[in-house]
Amino acid sequence: MYEMVKEAVDKRDFKTVKETFEHLEEADIADLMQGFHDNREVDAKDISLLFRLLPKDTAAEVFTYMETDMKELLINRFTDTELEDIVDNLFIDDTVDLIEEMPANVVQRILAASDPQSRKMINMILKYPEDSAGSIMTTEFVYMKRDQTVKECLEKIRSLGMVKETVYTIYVTEQDRRLVGVLSILDLLTADDDDIIGDIMDENVITALTTDDQEQVAAQFAKYDFVALPIVDNENRIVGIVTFDDAMDVVEEEATEDMAHMAATMTSEESYFKTSVIAHARNRIVWLLVLMLSSTISSIIIGHYEAAFATIPLLVASIPTLTGTGGNCGTQTSTMVIRGMSLGEIELKDFFKVMFKELRISLIVGVILAAVNFLRICIQYSKDTSVDSVKLGICVSLAIFAAVVMSKLIGCILPMAAKAVKIDPALMAAPFISTIVDASTTLVFFNIALLVFNIKI
Amino acid sequence: MYEMVKEAVDKRDFKTVKETFEHLEEADIADLMQGFHDNREVDAKDISLLFRLLPKDTAAEVFTYMETDMKELLINRFTDTELEDIVDNLFIDDTVDLIEEMPANVVQRILAASDPQSRKMINMILKYPEDSAGSIMTTEFVYMKRDQTVKECLEKIRSLGMVKETVYTIYVTEQDRRLVGVLSILDLLTADDDDIIGDIMDENVITALTTDDQEQVAAQFAKYDFVALPIVDNENRIVGIVTFDDAMDVVEEEATEDMAHMAATMTSEESYFKTSVIAHARNRIVWLLVLMLSSTISSIIIGHYEAAFATIPLLVASIPTLTGTGGNCGTQTSTMVIRGMSLGEIELKDFFKVMFKELRISLIVGVILAAVNFLRICIQYSKDTSVDSVKLGICVSLAIFAAVVMSKLIGCILPMAAKAVKIDPALMAAPFISTIVDASTTLVFFNIALLVFNIKI
Repeated sequence: MYEMVKEAVDKRDFKTVKETFEHLEEADIADLMQGFHDNREVDAKDISLLFRLLPKDTAAEVFTYMETDMKELLINRFTDTELEDIVDNLFIDDTVDLIEEMPANVVQRILAASDPQSRKMINMILKYPEDSAGSIMTTEFVYMKRDQTVKECLEKIRSLGMVKETVYTIYVTEQDRRLVGVLSILDLLTADDDDIIGDIMDENVITALTTDDQEQVAAQFAKYDFVALPIVDNENRIVGIVTFDDAMDVVEEEATEDMAHMAATMTSEESYFKTSVIAHARNRIVWLLVLMLSSTISSIIIGHYEAAFATIPLLVASIPTLTGTGGNCGTQTSTMVIRGMSLGEIELKDFFKVMFKELRISLIVGVILAAVNFLRICIQYSKDTSVDSVKLGICVSLAIFAAVVMSKLIGCILPMAAKAVKIDPALMAAPFISTIVDASTTLVFFNIALLVFNIKI
Repeated sequence: MYEMVKEAVDKRDFKTVKETFEHLEEADIADLMQGFHDNREVDAKDISLLFRLLPKDTAAEVFTYMETDMKELLINRFTDTELEDIVDNLFIDDTVDLIEEMPANVVQRILAASDPQSRKMINMILKYPEDSAGSIMTTEFVYMKRDQTVKECLEKIRSLGMVKETVYTIYVTEQDRRLVGVLSILDLLTADDDDIIGDIMDENVITALTTDDQEQVAAQFAKYDFVALPIVDNENRIVGIVTFDDAMDVVEEEATEDMAHMAATMTSEESYFKTSVIAHARNRIVWLLVLMLSSTISSIIIGHYEAAFATIPLLVASIPTLTGTGGNCGTQTSTMVIRGMSLGEIELKDFFKVMFKELRISLIVGVILAAVNFLRICIQYSKDTSVDSVKLGICVSLAIFAAVVMSKLIGCILPMAAKAVKIDPALMAAPFISTIVDASTTLVFFNIALLVFNIKI
């Protein structure tokens, strides 16, 4: 497909390109053009030429599927009239996304190309805090008064000519836009033309506030399987809707952000390849510095116990096993807890339940790891005359057991404490916990060693 | 709400309970009853009594929102007729899910309660491999012949009385069920009653094969924003559809599984609390054992360089900084790469592009970390007479630089190599990479130390 269109473009056979576009989904056309651009196979002039081959109604949708750099390239080549045509056909939430991505001079042109009514809506949405329900909603939706008929409603839907997902659900409001009911397009189809909307609507409406977090909104979708969720203000007046496809984007975005935070990385809006090397480095360096400097604590602890490993040098060889195992145990627990909180399975009030569960898990896991490790040390150092392998085994295995229990408890306490003080729990994941576990494990280990080998420092 | 219903149940005031249920969404009724059961506040007999208060059509939907233990409890208390009523009202994909969760004796009863037609469908779906498109599809969908009229189609939809998301899209087939077109319920509404389906349908249909991976199917939803995706066999005959809500579940499930694997944990089907302590321990112990035993390599390396830290004991104090930083860098990269591959942003053919990008990032990050660390060591050990702090700083900083570069490269090579040989890349994450990075970092570190301090071993 890619090659075929590429060849047609090279031959300036735009008739074939146009025909091929007719048989493609909008998302695929966008992918194709993005590919030409990313691989530098078609220049900016020809890209905008290709874009002009699209029928008006398709063009706007293809446009929304493109990446930031392509959008900017195209807008810069659009005439004012062309830009108006596109902006006219965009959903308000897509226009808002576009404005948030573009540099100031381009934003000016987009706003100038919007009609006054849309501009008002855009400004309203731009005012909502980032990641709030208000910031991801669209203001295009179908609403009716309760005393209108099914026939009137069907006529309204026909006349609007809006895209599928925004018309599957119809909202019923009072004169002052207060939301009082909801019905699906299917309810309309199975009703009589003369039925009154107020009689057939469902009065149980699940809504979200404009100020609700987008993650909460996505959770509503996952729970109720809605196609769209109405967004209301504090007076229960409907101001917009969020559709399932936006909720799905939020779910993916939040999971990506959680994973990045759990890996001690800050996130960028752009994809991996579109983010520059410098931006990647900047996103990663901060936490690496913090964590590297925090590891000074471990190094001070080790320095303090120099006498211990001066007497028994092999103690040092067990440090990676100890810190590694502690880190892994902490990672397992913190990941389970962070994900459980994201999915709403674990709540703050479950704190003691989680603690108690992790304690019991850590006892089982700790005993098994300690036992296996004891055997490993006895075998590995059985012929080593510099150390009593049984004593060393006891010492390392006790420390492993302690490390497992400590790290599992820290792994559930820290993310939940973070959540309680409204810090993203995902930041309290693997790297952060490992650093704390490293320090506490080495401390415990050397103290056990001093006791078992009867060393004075 | 919870307290209110609880009180009504305690007072045996089932009229109030029934009225309250009428104003609740099905998912919320299920939550409420699940809460009563989990907190052991209402016994099994009363739970099934509460369930019987629900109207028939609501009951089946409430049932699908319940957790496994509640479903089993209820089925065991249902009469055969009651069970038939529920199974009759379930979607085929929900019945299949139920069968997969239940013990054999309960499965027998469910199959006995299904009508022969459904039983055939159920058996067909059960044969598809786990995590395939076929295994998550439902066989309830609306299909029409191309020569039928809009009026006939609307009548069919009205007569089916199916749930919203399964009728928003209508599939057009040949006599042999080969899929030739698609139209939305909105197309029907804006067409004339006498229009022929074949004339107004869209012939560009995006489909998935029954054998496609469910992750691929979810990716199609994220890309095209569909409400439903038709699932076809090898002859392009439509056999079922996957709806957006199921796709959303897949997205969440896959993210959870990736995170668990990245934290070296095996996953369980159940939620955190429903999974027993023993099951949690079992899911975690395998990787912990593997990783603990692999760390033997690091301990052998350290043992080998005993002479080095016998001469300069402070070398030991830097081990946690080195392994920690290396581990964190590897985690950052592997997480970005694993997530990028999940989202389809990074593909196997991008291998060298990713390598080169990570190499450049690691050079920047490595230089900064090495420089800061050099300063830290110079300051920390400036008054320590046992060691030349500048030499120690050079030695640790060089090792840090090497650790950063190595770990970033390993962090992108391993997950991509895993993907190439069809192992889940998420298993090549933090813990696994840390273990490899630990060993290689210590090896490099001690060799640099031998050189800088001119030690012979």
